[in-house]
Amino acid sequence: MPAYRVILVSPMHEGNVGAVARAMANFGFQELFIIDPCILGDEAYKRAKHAGYILDSAVIASCFEEAISNCSLVVGTSGKVTEGEKHFIRISETPKSLAQKVKDYEGRVALVFGPEDLGLTQEQLEKCDMLVHIPSCDEYPTLNLSHALSIILYEIFYTGAPTPHPRPANIDEKEMLFDFFHQLLEAVEYPEFRREKTEIMFRRMMGRAVPTKWEFYTIMGVFSDAVKAATGKKPGKS
Amino acid sequence: MPAYRVILVSPMHEGNVGAVARAMANFGFQELFIIDPCILGDEAYKRAKHAGYILDSAVIASCFEEAISNCSLVVGTSGKVTEGEKHFIRISETPKSLAQKVKDYEGRVALVFGPEDLGLTQEQLEKCDMLVHIPSCDEYPTLNLSHALSIILYEIFYTGAPTPHPRPANIDEKEMLFDFFHQLLEAVEYPEFRREKTEIMFRRMMGRAVPTKWEFYTIMGVFSDAVKAATGKKPGKS
Repeated sequence: MPAYRVILVSPMHEGNVGAVARAMANFGFQELFIIDPCILGDEAYKRAKHAGYILDSAVIASCFEEAISNCSLVVGTSGKVTEGEKHFIRISETPKSLAQKVKDYEGRVALVFGPEDLGLTQEQLEKCDMLVHIPSCDEYPTLNLSHALSIILYEIFYTGAPTPHPRPANIDEKEMLFDFFHQLLEAVEYPEFRREKTEIMFRRMMGRAVPTKWEFYTIMGVFSDAVKAATGKKPGKS
Repeated sequence: MPAYRVILVSPMHEGNVGAVARAMANFGFQELFIIDPCILGDEAYKRAKHAGYILDSAVIASCFEEAISNCSLVVGTSGKVTEGEKHFIRISETPKSLAQKVKDYEGRVALVFGPEDLGLTQEQLEKCDMLVHIPSCDEYPTLNLSHALSIILYEIFYTGAPTPHPRPANIDEKEMLFDFFHQLLEAVEYPEFRREKTEIMFRRMMGRAVPTKWEFYTIMGVFSDAVKAATGKKPGKS
């Protein structure tokens, strides 16, 4: 896994810088470099919430070259996409493909964000090894700075550390459930000619739902009770 | 593809509501319902930028039931994840799995976001058909409202409409390039015993780079020139 450095070039609104710090903390990023920053006052710290420490330790760099020092891969963000293949300077990754490409990278990756109004200059983009662009609506494609950053950091965080999911039920447990369902159809004297279709439908439905072990056992319990009740093995039901 | 409705429950900061409107416009969402809103003044419209029209047409709902009316699937957002499988109320989708599950859905999907400080109540969560949780850092997992919304809308937008990529080169074009590279190694009298390894390395490198048609032809041109120059077929070089 690489180390990451977020670089903001000439951010204009301190609130955005604060929101950037918060999003960085949310996804476990720490290193912030700022070139030509606006004043970082109360609004920045208010928006950073519990991530003020990232603002405190932000490095003010005097130029682009200084900001990318020690970075072996420089990723620029761009709100514009290439129109044709020949404009190779604007050929870009999506946040998803970027996250996939950098995840096994060793060294330090710089993620560079331009100012809110104009973005990175042509000259700055030419110094980037890779570009990332967030797919968005043609009518209003320009994302807020901290929103764009959140999406990119989220993809990198997510790709690096997938969330553990609850254990799905195994095949035997599933078959037990389908068997209970079969018994239930028998117990309620469900019309013979419809049984097979209904069983398949139930199986498909469970397939789409991907229930956890615990959910399977719960439903099985319900069916088991229903079978007993329907066949009169338990008092209180027919 | 379903229709979508964004529902904000008791948002506290008008700036966040404005930022929500902007993110909605960025990803092509229009329908905003707000239950118990804060005052939406200058700050909201400033942060909405070109998406003020979404604030203008926002529907103020008097309660949760009214807000979700006409929605056939209600998705709640939660900053907390389930600890065990038995807390099924907190078993959640990731933004990615949510986007996959709803994309072919017909009808209207509600995406419900709770207030900034406490999120949706237990009672509100129980009324949701599905929960979505954004994986984040354990140390500071709470995302800003509009950041969380941006990530979820981005995933839905992205899954529904993947960006067209520049045409990759086809297999014949690739082989032509590798052939030129081979000729180049010969032309420069590259050490015989290293050629195979170097050719494989080059092939692998191009594999990782996934160059476009245009990039392939450009590099081929360069190699072709280099071969001519190295073998003296063109004046001006050795």
